[in-house]
Amino acid sequence: MERLMRRVLKAAILGATGLVGIEYVRILSQHPYIKPAYLAGKGSVGKPYGEITRWQTVGQIPKEIADMEVKPTDPKMMDDVDLIFSPLPAGAAGPVEEEFAKQGFPVISNSPDHRFDPDVPMMVPEINSHTVTLIDEQRKRRDWKGFIVTTPLCTAQGAAIPLAPIFMNFKMEGAFITTIQSLSGAGYPGIPSLDIVDNILPLGDAYDAKTVKEVYRLLSETKRNVQEPDIKEVSLSATTHRIATIQGHYEVAYVTFKEETSAEKVKEAMDQFKGEPQELKLPSAPEKPILMTNKDNRPQVFFDRWAGDPPGMSIVVGRVNQVNKKTVRYVSLIHNTVRGAAGGGVLTAELLTEKGYLPK
Amino acid sequence: MERLMRRVLKAAILGATGLVGIEYVRILSQHPYIKPAYLAGKGSVGKPYGEITRWQTVGQIPKEIADMEVKPTDPKMMDDVDLIFSPLPAGAAGPVEEEFAKQGFPVISNSPDHRFDPDVPMMVPEINSHTVTLIDEQRKRRDWKGFIVTTPLCTAQGAAIPLAPIFMNFKMEGAFITTIQSLSGAGYPGIPSLDIVDNILPLGDAYDAKTVKEVYRLLSETKRNVQEPDIKEVSLSATTHRIATIQGHYEVAYVTFKEETSAEKVKEAMDQFKGEPQELKLPSAPEKPILMTNKDNRPQVFFDRWAGDPPGMSIVVGRVNQVNKKTVRYVSLIHNTVRGAAGGGVLTAELLTEKGYLPK
Amino acid sequence: MERLMRRVLKAAILGATGLVGIEYVRILSQHPYIKPAYLAGKGSVGKPYGEITRWQTVGQIPKEIADMEVKPTDPKMMDDVDLIFSPLPAGAAGPVEEEFAKQGFPVISNSPDHRFDPDVPMMVPEINSHTVTLIDEQRKRRDWKGFIVTTPLCTAQGAAIPLAPIFMNFKMEGAFITTIQSLSGAGYPGIPSLDIVDNILPLGDAYDAKTVKEVYRLLSETKRNVQEPDIKEVSLSATTHRIATIQGHYEVAYVTFKEETSAEKVKEAMDQFKGEPQELKLPSAPEKPILMTNKDNRPQVFFDRWAGDPPGMSIVVGRVNQVNKKTVRYVSLIHNTVRGAAGGGVLTAELLTEKGYLPK
Amino acid sequence: MERLMRRVLKAAILGATGLVGIEYVRILSQHPYIKPAYLAGKGSVGKPYGEITRWQTVGQIPKEIADMEVKPTDPKMMDDVDLIFSPLPAGAAGPVEEEFAKQGFPVISNSPDHRFDPDVPMMVPEINSHTVTLIDEQRKRRDWKGFIVTTPLCTAQGAAIPLAPIFMNFKMEGAFITTIQSLSGAGYPGIPSLDIVDNILPLGDAYDAKTVKEVYRLLSETKRNVQEPDIKEVSLSATTHRIATIQGHYEVAYVTFKEETSAEKVKEAMDQFKGEPQELKLPSAPEKPILMTNKDNRPQVFFDRWAGDPPGMSIVVGRVNQVNKKTVRYVSLIHNTVRGAAGGGVLTAELLTEKGYLPK
Ligand SMILES: NC(=O)c1ccc[n+]([C@@H]2O[C@H](COP(=O)([O-])OP(=O)(O)OC[C@H]3O[C@@H](n4cnc5c(N)ncnc54)[C@H](OP(=O)(O)O)[C@@H]3O)[C@@H](O)[C@H]2O)c1
Ligand SMILES: NC(=O)c1ccc[n+]([C@@H]2O[C@H](COP(=O)([O-])OP(=O)(O)OC[C@H]3O[C@@H](n4cnc5c(N)ncnc54)[C@H](OP(=O)(O)O)[C@@H]3O)[C@@H](O)[C@H]2O)c1
Ligand SMILES: NC(=O)c1ccc[n+]([C@@H]2O[C@H](COP(=O)([O-])OP(=O)(O)OC[C@H]3O[C@@H](n4cnc5c(N)ncnc54)[C@H](OP(=O)(O)O)[C@@H]3O)[C@@H](O)[C@H]2O)c1
Ligand SMILES: NC(=O)c1ccc[n+]([C@@H]2O[C@H](COP(=O)([O-])OP(=O)(O)OC[C@H]3O[C@@H](n4cnc5c(N)ncnc54)[C@H](OP(=O)(O)O)[C@@H]3O)[C@@H](O)[C@H]2O)c1
Repeated sequence: MERLMRRVLKAAILGATGLVGIEYVRILSQHPYIKPAYLAGKGSVGKPYGEITRWQTVGQIPKEIADMEVKPTDPKMMDDVDLIFSPLPAGAAGPVEEEFAKQGFPVISNSPDHRFDPDVPMMVPEINSHTVTLIDEQRKRRDWKGFIVTTPLCTAQGAAIPLAPIFMNFKMEGAFITTIQSLSGAGYPGIPSLDIVDNILPLGDAYDAKTVKEVYRLLSETKRNVQEPDIKEVSLSATTHRIATIQGHYEVAYVTFKEETSAEKVKEAMDQFKGEPQELKLPSAPEKPILMTNKDNRPQVFFDRWAGDPPGMSIVVGRVNQVNKKTVRYVSLIHNTVRGAAGGGVLTAELLTEKGYLPK
Repeated sequence: MERLMRRVLKAAILGATGLVGIEYVRILSQHPYIKPAYLAGKGSVGKPYGEITRWQTVGQIPKEIADMEVKPTDPKMMDDVDLIFSPLPAGAAGPVEEEFAKQGFPVISNSPDHRFDPDVPMMVPEINSHTVTLIDEQRKRRDWKGFIVTTPLCTAQGAAIPLAPIFMNFKMEGAFITTIQSLSGAGYPGIPSLDIVDNILPLGDAYDAKTVKEVYRLLSETKRNVQEPDIKEVSLSATTHRIATIQGHYEVAYVTFKEETSAEKVKEAMDQFKGEPQELKLPSAPEKPILMTNKDNRPQVFFDRWAGDPPGMSIVVGRVNQVNKKTVRYVSLIHNTVRGAAGGGVLTAELLTEKGYLPK
Repeated sequence: MERLMRRVLKAAILGATGLVGIEYVRILSQHPYIKPAYLAGKGSVGKPYGEITRWQTVGQIPKEIADMEVKPTDPKMMDDVDLIFSPLPAGAAGPVEEEFAKQGFPVISNSPDHRFDPDVPMMVPEINSHTVTLIDEQRKRRDWKGFIVTTPLCTAQGAAIPLAPIFMNFKMEGAFITTIQSLSGAGYPGIPSLDIVDNILPLGDAYDAKTVKEVYRLLSETKRNVQEPDIKEVSLSATTHRIATIQGHYEVAYVTFKEETSAEKVKEAMDQFKGEPQELKLPSAPEKPILMTNKDNRPQVFFDRWAGDPPGMSIVVGRVNQVNKKTVRYVSLIHNTVRGAAGGGVLTAELLTEKGYLPK
Repeated sequence: MERLMRRVLKAAILGATGLVGIEYVRILSQHPYIKPAYLAGKGSVGKPYGEITRWQTVGQIPKEIADMEVKPTDPKMMDDVDLIFSPLPAGAAGPVEEEFAKQGFPVISNSPDHRFDPDVPMMVPEINSHTVTLIDEQRKRRDWKGFIVTTPLCTAQGAAIPLAPIFMNFKMEGAFITTIQSLSGAGYPGIPSLDIVDNILPLGDAYDAKTVKEVYRLLSETKRNVQEPDIKEVSLSATTHRIATIQGHYEVAYVTFKEETSAEKVKEAMDQFKGEPQELKLPSAPEKPILMTNKDNRPQVFFDRWAGDPPGMSIVVGRVNQVNKKTVRYVSLIHNTVRGAAGGGVLTAELLTEKGYLPK
């Protein structure tokens, strides 16, 4: 009922042919009130979307989208667009997104370029929906009608979402994370095949560090039930890798606590974890952001990455074990291009609508 | 000089056609004083070794070996054999190895069946060479002329060898390990292909537990420079997986300490780590059991698994980082069928020769 | 309208947990008038389908199916079942299918056991729908109320479907086929991972021969527009392999003719190819059984295996080239577990309904 | 004896860090009279070879080579170099090679740039060693002291070597080839991983065509025992693909003849095939350029690519079958970076030495 009366939002997808772009197209072509109206890219400009796009995901390119022509990332051509999704590559994204915001467009970006601007939210709606108010500051400070909101690194989301209910409810001391990430996380062409067949590719210090930095910020923006320790006293580390899986970042976490903490309680906290998207019943909000499994050989990338409803929006957590009285181990799986990028972007747009930052 | 006068030992390899068996064949066909004299199996009995064997390793089957016929695992047929290497499957190995030992043969086993018999050594010569004396007890108790010595699980060796110098020199509190193991670790046919393409296979609770159990024992048998904490106070955990690599187990370790401990010192201890094999200059002893790398994208399975001299006998450790004052992180790579099985078995035989348990 | 009045058929799926079984479940849970009512297996009997099944396909296990218990393949327990789909393994299938047919059940089998019984149709509905009448003979001869209809080997279908319009319309002399098949074609556990990583697995003489034998039969049952040469004068050969793809058999065909034959005309014939399923507008009939592509780097397994509507029911053909005046080359891609098995089975059931062999 | 007196040739390897370059380094560091004296590259100039090189092959980087610094491809710096091996990328190779030849250096190139210059040999020494005399013409025409000799495309060699004895001895009508090639054939970074996991990558029209063009030339330069048909009347076609194998190009060939031709005779011709390298007993000449296997599941890429002595210099042929009286089928496997590039280059250098084009 309500939906029938809703205003339909026309969205532009910048980088629509990319690995995140295709998930936006897939999700929005079935969305109740956000429609993919404008597909933009660079090398593929002028070509029919269906011809040029490597559709490295499930299903087929929707017929009505396949014939759309890819257009340049030009604000002037987007008069009737309400909203910009920007999964552009790092470096290219920054200035383009600013230009759009300046021209009055709401921009939801998956790129790293503005994530750490002090007046830009870096949003996982279940974790830090209250940070949307940074937009007001941003507009004021920059004198923009539009604005920029970002989503975090997929790897950081994979780590932070299961850690959020832990940090919110227990006296966490540290978290030591090992990631086994998929190829799509690096975009296309991304990782050379000769780096990955019969191999594991360590991602190195810089990647480890940026993961940790984003997890710190996300945890620091949670709404906690315990007030200590301060996030600054928590020790976080990530050891990151890529292997020859197509989608899905798998992560192993050892979490230490300042006091005795039971794995059962930790499990329960993750299972119960909800946020504003669930309260507001946003269309892209999974009933449970974290799905728990009890099988000791799950989650598996191939079988669990599309978990949840909408598919790929729930993180699957399993192998939760008491290591010692103050240490708990678990593993998690996040769909990097969905929950970790496009799906997170759409969920953020839905939140912005409810919060009055987008027309309803 | 000395070598010319050495007695040549004739070895039987039980399970010679298997993934560990082929590494025994490869290593022994170039060994200064142990020769592959008898190749035994089950399904392949009666067939020429070169015809029936899947040579899933480097190089070619040595010509003189290719024509040998695979024979049954029958002590009666091995009159002139001095020594048995037994990489037989769990379950099958146990009774066969006992029979051989009873018949007077020295047996070096890579299988798990007798690893936790209280009178059987579980040997990583650099770590616990002094446990050979268990053989005396074993012979006495069982009234055997022969004996059984085992080598540990490849995964446990991959964890324990880098941990040994740490536990020996620092006040370790815990070690939280994540493994990313290769397919060959499960033997042939082993892992179904549909479990591993575009997937990560969690190995589950039982595999996690047996890894930890063996690491505990190995660490408890080190010769320590610090006397605390007792191994029983140390917290160990392993989260184990397999992916589509052919050889080489990669492991990430987060090690916590009871007091401030510098990553630099830990590095140094690993770099300096040596044991009796190095002192005795055993032919299969690598100069350094642990090779350190400073590149933050190494070790890599494809490029580093054959590290050391003899190839595959050194573990490569890298990405050593200070996580916090009391926590250090590193990653390691072990060649599972060489250092973790056949190479370890041959090194053990060499040690036994020097210690008088095998003729010299 | 019509559909509302149709009788709903209750189907049992024998081997429902297998790689073909899951495609039956996926397809039938959305089918207009055939419902999955009974799921049977062997090792998984007694367990909830959703718990025990490796869902190695797209989408999720339908909720209402996930809770169903896997039951034994016992005709006595299937009183209210109208129809049996039998993707049982070779050997196991034969006697079970006979028993069901004897007890009065219509059986559609994907297994090889009865394919070459002289009174059993081996059906690709677009090619040889007229052979359904063998059922009458079968019932008479065997005095059965039920009956058995089979579908061919997936590899043979992948070869025969594009060859059918060629053999029907041109004076074909020979076809020389090279297959690059996927892992799912061998079932689960199927191919050991160590046979397939960094390798190509030749399937050998027996597999080559059975492919050719089935293609001969299928072509001989086409309705031709040219009357020569006789199929016996046509030379067919297949060189078969498996590689590490999950689904989708890719095949390269060199077709030689007795007279000058243009690649353009051959293309047109494949593009125009239709059969009785299209005429009858059966629900599982794709509009085009063969979809032509002009891109010289397509079809690709990852991107094209789900082609058509219903997904996976169209074969994609490309790289059609004139080699010389009398030789044409093309490549094709078939979804082995859908078009080559479950989808073909469902299409056959739909045909049987229209032809009066199943209630409507 | 003879070897002791031989002059040692100092070789420069241009592109020494590449996938072909590393095989040159591996082979020459064990060569009786050609030594790797100068390693040149572009991006890696100034760095120690052992630091910068991805050693994607067997064994380890030889110690004495690891410390050598990579230098620019500058003829002026190579005063004491006798011979240039040039596995440079297409485009880059052409002008550099000309410059070296002009400066008086003998250049053996694996790149395509000069392959079809009318005065440049394109050499597979077993097939067309007599074409070395083109060098005389080349020097005269271009007024060079140095010269350029090329080796063909790896894929073309894989096709042409088994076809050579067939075309030489039988009345061949056509050959229809399907290739399944490895990733290393495209150099590094080469094929993006997302193109190859769970996929087959068709190489398209241009790649098909260049393969055929080179095979034509090679066959036309064989020394034939039958004089018809002319090569121009022979119909050749190639359908080319890449999959996720690291080294080794696998090819399926259907060969048609103008008259009845027995598979046994064809086998024999391939088995007996020898050329001048075998007669001259060149150090890199395998005893048999073609090794025949009778197992119907061989050759396999993983197990057979290093066949022959020196390793990787023999092509393995199997699955030879009579398709019909005038058609024979077989499959072959060539090590693309060894026989198809560096090994072929070294063999060519050895031939040039014996023929007086290089000092002996
Ligand atoms: N992949 C993930 O899992 C993931 C997760 C979270 C965040 N992200 C972030 O999302 C962004 C996109 O990642 P991706 O994996 O989708 O990358 P991708 O597959 O490489 O796609 C990049 C897209 O951007 C377009 N593009 C590139 N340069 C452009 C320019 N200068 N102007 C306009 N369009 C341009 C490309 O269009 P043409 O094809 O037309 O050139 C293409 O559509 C990155 O910032 C990444 O960090 C990715
Ligand atoms: N793979 C590793 O990385 C690794 C590392 C450490 C320890 N291990 C241990 O080493 C052992 C061998 O492992 P693997 O990977 O080499 O296994 P594998 O590849 O499966 O080989 C098993 C071998 O044992 C033979 N065999 C099997 N059953 C037998 C029986 N009843 N009697 C006599 N011979 C029999 C087989 O011979 P036929 O072919 O003739 O039947 C084959 O040669 C296992 O106990 C394993 O736990 C393995
Ligand atoms: N895969 C293909 O592409 C393809 C294509 C065309 C035709 N086919 C044919 O289809 C059949 C099934 O192939 P698949 O790939 O689906 O095999 P699969 O994955 O191995 O599945 C086999 C199924 O059969 C069940 N089963 C096994 N033995 C049984 C018995 N004795 N009694 C009852 N149920 C039994 C198993 O149930 P439990 O798990 O409960 O034991 C499982 O559900 C084979 O005949 C195959 O030749 C396959
Ligand atoms: N791979 C095969 O199977 C194969 C078979 C037959 C023939 N070939 C031919 O062999 C050649 C090399 O192939 P590859 O696979 O070895 O390629 P690759 O792995 O990409 O290596 C290219 C090498 O060339 C160097 N290089 C690139 N541009 C250069 C320039 N402008 N000046 C000087 N050096 C330059 C690179 O050095 P830096 O790293 O220092 O930049 C690197 O060492 C190609 O022409 C290829 O067609 C290859």
